[in-house]
Amino acid sequence: MHLRDVGEFGLIARLRALTHREDARVLVGIGDDAAVVAGANTLVMTTDALVEGVHFRRDWSQMEGIGYRALAASLSDLAAMGASPAYVMVTLMVPHSETVEGLEELYRGMMQLADLFAVRVVGGDVVATSGPLTISIAATGELLGMRPLLRSGVRPGDWIFVTGDLGGSGAFVHYLASGKACVLTPEDALTLRLRHERPQPQVRAARVLATLTDDARRGTGCTGLNDISDGLASELHELAQASDVRLLIHAERVPTAPAVRHYARAAGVDPLDFALYGGEDFQLVGAVDPAQAGRLLAQMEGAGVRVTIIGEAEEGDVGVDMRKGRQRVALHKGGYDHFGQAPTDHGRTGGNGI
Amino acid sequence: MHLRDVGEFGLIARLRALTHREDARVLVGIGDDAAVVAGANTLVMTTDALVEGVHFRRDWSQMEGIGYRALAASLSDLAAMGASPAYVMVTLMVPHSETVEGLEELYRGMMQLADLFAVRVVGGDVVATSGPLTISIAATGELLGMRPLLRSGVRPGDWIFVTGDLGGSGAFVHYLASGKACVLTPEDALTLRLRHERPQPQVRAARVLATLTDDARRGTGCTGLNDISDGLASELHELAQASDVRLLIHAERVPTAPAVRHYARAAGVDPLDFALYGGEDFQLVGAVDPAQAGRLLAQMEGAGVRVTIIGEAEEGDVGVDMRKGRQRVALHKGGYDHFGQAPTDHGRTGGNGI
Repeated sequence: MHLRDVGEFGLIARLRALTHREDARVLVGIGDDAAVVAGANTLVMTTDALVEGVHFRRDWSQMEGIGYRALAASLSDLAAMGASPAYVMVTLMVPHSETVEGLEELYRGMMQLADLFAVRVVGGDVVATSGPLTISIAATGELLGMRPLLRSGVRPGDWIFVTGDLGGSGAFVHYLASGKACVLTPEDALTLRLRHERPQPQVRAARVLATLTDDARRGTGCTGLNDISDGLASELHELAQASDVRLLIHAERVPTAPAVRHYARAAGVDPLDFALYGGEDFQLVGAVDPAQAGRLLAQMEGAGVRVTIIGEAEEGDVGVDMRKGRQRVALHKGGYDHFGQAPTDHGRTGGNGI
Repeated sequence: MHLRDVGEFGLIARLRALTHREDARVLVGIGDDAAVVAGANTLVMTTDALVEGVHFRRDWSQMEGIGYRALAASLSDLAAMGASPAYVMVTLMVPHSETVEGLEELYRGMMQLADLFAVRVVGGDVVATSGPLTISIAATGELLGMRPLLRSGVRPGDWIFVTGDLGGSGAFVHYLASGKACVLTPEDALTLRLRHERPQPQVRAARVLATLTDDARRGTGCTGLNDISDGLASELHELAQASDVRLLIHAERVPTAPAVRHYARAAGVDPLDFALYGGEDFQLVGAVDPAQAGRLLAQMEGAGVRVTIIGEAEEGDVGVDMRKGRQRVALHKGGYDHFGQAPTDHGRTGGNGI
């Protein structure tokens, strides 16, 4: 169905119906000049934009997956501050060639994730553009603990951990970009597709980390936290820089899924490269006081979150090293600069939130 | 300076420096995964996107004016709910041809308005696009009174008021679109340009309306409120529809600036058309219980806000009539549908927030 058949107000009515949920916290939802929602003592806010051709490709992902992933990027940013998501506003910049069904599919994917966390879509905007389809999401959440979990408190001696496994999204993008040149088993192909299209923002992990840190002596607990949107290497550099420490990572400890290793072997690539530079895994990387590491591992297991200690913080120049076998090498930052190069169709969400 | 000379992180550092203000409410500003700010009991949230070629033209407005107007649209939405603005996040979708100086100018214009209301830019995102420059702003504010001022409470017998004067922005766009075919005095040209590029969101008026409504018996006070982004006619229709009433407006009472009347005369147009269909004045239109109208006018005068009673609500079918001399005619809605027609370079901000 063409947009001109339903018009702006018809489209808005459809999206409003798709997103409406009964919720006493939402005093005024979509339909007036602004939304009115129940507040909180401390608010956490983030925004992310995704541009077709820069952050996603329609021939690589279904609209549902694009919507899911767009929201996941925002919820992941909130988790990385130790916050749970509450309200989102979704702005669409829409080319005239778009169909109503396509946009509804996008919203359906988004609502699959929103409903998992009782996140409410309370507003947004829909405007026409002569450019590519663009999705801009603003998300507001509440601190899970008494303090936000910043990037800047890592001390020498702290251990570095990651949640989940890494490299799945990057491996899937590599697989698509190669024109599916390698043969994958259906199970591996599905695993990689899900890592890319249905990333899980680590809200449960954030809750464990916030509680642990509230209970710990100030300056201990989780001393630094970042979500992995630009690849592990880039996020580690951000932690090191914000905390003014050197980090040492052990290559063999970086967790990757079997499907990533299978694909890497078939493609003749080091699976570690997908973890370090692939990005978009939306897992968390952080630092913990070694005295609290046992409790962290136990509580994460209780919450159903896999956690791996991959290295430690050290005295020394700001930066990141990696030990691989007997070698210790400086880990380059990698990552994506939106203006340092021409935009590439690499399927990566993000752009570092300012 | 080209964007590639400073890169994404260089650009973000510059914009961060431009927007930074010391403020105890902002616990974490730009620079981590998300912002952390002091909360409130009830939050009001809105988002708006502006696309070059659809909502603004660079040959018509300076970047400073575009930035100012972009933020004004969001603050106006908050005022129309009876809320004062507190925090904003600004997302830029940037073509590679953009210059650093241009984006800084845009931000400088935005900060001129932000500083007037101690609004803090606490985050955002910057991404590359193959399409036109696009600005997406998410704003969060706090209710000024105990309840939001909705569109939906207007009762037959209530009086309809507007703040300020109308049609200035529409007249300026008409003047530019005509290739400046008419001669304007420098004073009139400046007045119209300021109406278009430096619209004043009616936060002080919103405060008066919120207080008046808190003090009034429930269901009286300000019984309906909307900001004028799409033209008075369209906003009146929204009020009528949300409140299930008929509105009657008196043409000769609709306030326009002398510059609008001068220009309309020179261009051979009815000045009323600019007020009804021009849009982007960002004044407020609302309804008030006649018993409180005296107090409203007095307090608005005290706050330095011009208010004009332009009509009243009646029983009858939902809709809007206009009395002009002895005639009473149905007022058509007009306004802009983002998908009902091809996008036009009409310089209008907005798109109805969903």
